[in-house]
Amino acid sequence: MPMSQIYCSQFPIVVLARIMAHSSLIIDNLQYANWSENIFRQMSEGGVSAVHVTIAYHEQFRETVSNFEAWNRWFERFPDLIFQGFTGDDVRRAQSEGRTAIFLGFQNPSPMEDDIGLIEVLHRLGARFMQLSYNNQSFLATGCYEDKDPGITRFGKQAIAEMNRVGLVIDMSHSAERSTLEAIEMSSRPIAITHANPHAWHPALRNKSHTVLKSLTDADGMLGFSLYPHHLKDGSACTLESFCRAIADAAELYGAKHLGIGSDLCQDQPDSVVEWMRNGRWSKVLDFGEGSASDAGFPPQPDWFVDNRDFGNIAQGLSSVGFSQGEVDGIMGQNWLRFYDDAFVPAGSETS
Amino acid sequence: MPMSQIYCSQFPIVVLARIMAHSSLIIDNLQYANWSENIFRQMSEGGVSAVHVTIAYHEQFRETVSNFEAWNRWFERFPDLIFQGFTGDDVRRAQSEGRTAIFLGFQNPSPMEDDIGLIEVLHRLGARFMQLSYNNQSFLATGCYEDKDPGITRFGKQAIAEMNRVGLVIDMSHSAERSTLEAIEMSSRPIAITHANPHAWHPALRNKSHTVLKSLTDADGMLGFSLYPHHLKDGSACTLESFCRAIADAAELYGAKHLGIGSDLCQDQPDSVVEWMRNGRWSKVLDFGEGSASDAGFPPQPDWFVDNRDFGNIAQGLSSVGFSQGEVDGIMGQNWLRFYDDAFVPAGSETS
Repeated sequence: MPMSQIYCSQFPIVVLARIMAHSSLIIDNLQYANWSENIFRQMSEGGVSAVHVTIAYHEQFRETVSNFEAWNRWFERFPDLIFQGFTGDDVRRAQSEGRTAIFLGFQNPSPMEDDIGLIEVLHRLGARFMQLSYNNQSFLATGCYEDKDPGITRFGKQAIAEMNRVGLVIDMSHSAERSTLEAIEMSSRPIAITHANPHAWHPALRNKSHTVLKSLTDADGMLGFSLYPHHLKDGSACTLESFCRAIADAAELYGAKHLGIGSDLCQDQPDSVVEWMRNGRWSKVLDFGEGSASDAGFPPQPDWFVDNRDFGNIAQGLSSVGFSQGEVDGIMGQNWLRFYDDAFVPAGSETS
Repeated sequence: MPMSQIYCSQFPIVVLARIMAHSSLIIDNLQYANWSENIFRQMSEGGVSAVHVTIAYHEQFRETVSNFEAWNRWFERFPDLIFQGFTGDDVRRAQSEGRTAIFLGFQNPSPMEDDIGLIEVLHRLGARFMQLSYNNQSFLATGCYEDKDPGITRFGKQAIAEMNRVGLVIDMSHSAERSTLEAIEMSSRPIAITHANPHAWHPALRNKSHTVLKSLTDADGMLGFSLYPHHLKDGSACTLESFCRAIADAAELYGAKHLGIGSDLCQDQPDSVVEWMRNGRWSKVLDFGEGSASDAGFPPQPDWFVDNRDFGNIAQGLSSVGFSQGEVDGIMGQNWLRFYDDAFVPAGSETS
């Protein structure tokens, strides 16, 4: 830590590392909590400058608009804590004002229905990430729970081009392997896997193969590390060190600058919500997704990451496994911020 | 014309007046044409920097979204001619680039349906004007063709407050007298009558009483003078001089700074469109509105105002009836621009 030594050599180095870790810009690129003033206050207390929030799992257009409306009411009620984010600069503003910029996104293309023109409309309303499929086959791509994955569809090719044009980021977190590889290939702009972990660390169906992660990051895409217990080695008992070592292994293979956090935090949600995520309106037989009949609900979070005040633990954990302060800052927020700067604007107006 | 004399005293004053009139910023605050590349080129040739365009007469939310989409496709196809306007600064940009900023609006509150949250959503999509009623009673206010006008409704009071909050301008062009007076009174921000003329000049049902115009302009509201023949004295045979004298009379009563143009130009529209405007889906018996069974279609425009290349005629006509160059500039565009600057932003962030 040469920077600490230069600026404050009289302080013990270990204390300094903690202070600096705590002051990292923090972006969490995926949450779906049961929103409340309490959670917004925790974001603020935790120094979280931006959160990408899911507002659609199976909702179609009009329902999704109602979800935008619900967020407008949160923004109107708690302007001292949160505001809607549209650009990277909104993250900087949030950081400087001690507030949290909330970016909205979808885990399924259901909000665009069968209408490619809705992509630009939804982007105008502030949608910044959209998964091309959620577990199942969509009009655009295949989900990771399907038996067969024929790849990106005819409509999918058009949707990718339109998302590229307007600046709506393609997210393949819940998509199947071939569809994901094709989306990376077809997209003219970097894409994201907002919330998943390397399959090599924990071989869950939702975690991603080396092939996918290599292809994603070679194309300058981003991986958000998930803290959802089903995605973690040893589930709820996963240790902070194991989690941070998984990130360190990924950094060696793919470069630390392509890694960030997408916690998938579903704080305060009743179990009926995970049932909605998994079954929507498509199934008459209960699908348990990553759970099981005997373990159908939300699993408990690891004790070192329970809510938005715990990002400091991760920053410290990353330092402890050997990341430099610059790398920690990148993973905690600066990497997503750099991605936001380029990804959310229309094609041709990127800054870099 | 002291300015002309100061800067170029060697030129004949009358020639100078024409050159200056032609270089006025031009804003037309209401058109509903059968849009085409041809019309966009005429806007550009006519030096029209901004047009407020109607995209809903009776359309509900989802249909209106399709109309936003249709405009997105125009903007994508003809970026050298047009782009979507959101703020007053977009007008300045359009003027400096020789393009036209298109502002979108509704002649009815039908796009917000029964959902007050849609006001902010529609404003985010770019809606900048919304009439509280179109000829008939709406959920919010009474239209000018109803026999009775009970004034602004319970929902209407809430909608006015919400439109004020987000920066969606209240337009009462097709509303009834009492509803209009109440809207002016209840609104915390200036409102507009985007396209109508003084009843004292031509006593059409759609034209506005002295009481309304006095109240409107006392509250810093704007009147856009209409060039729709049913609103003109002598209809299609109305002379340029008569039209400009009507503006001069209004300027004496209400102040020139509260006056602009809202031509109501319906260029190239088939007569089926005026039938849609008048009947929507509400009537099983043909309503002829301002027309009649024997004169049901669009009336021909006066020969001095046929398309977007003819605004120079109006500017000259205004000079001829004695307006100063500054007043002409105001009426041709600067008054609307000043109004846009303050009216389109959220309450509390006005510049003046």
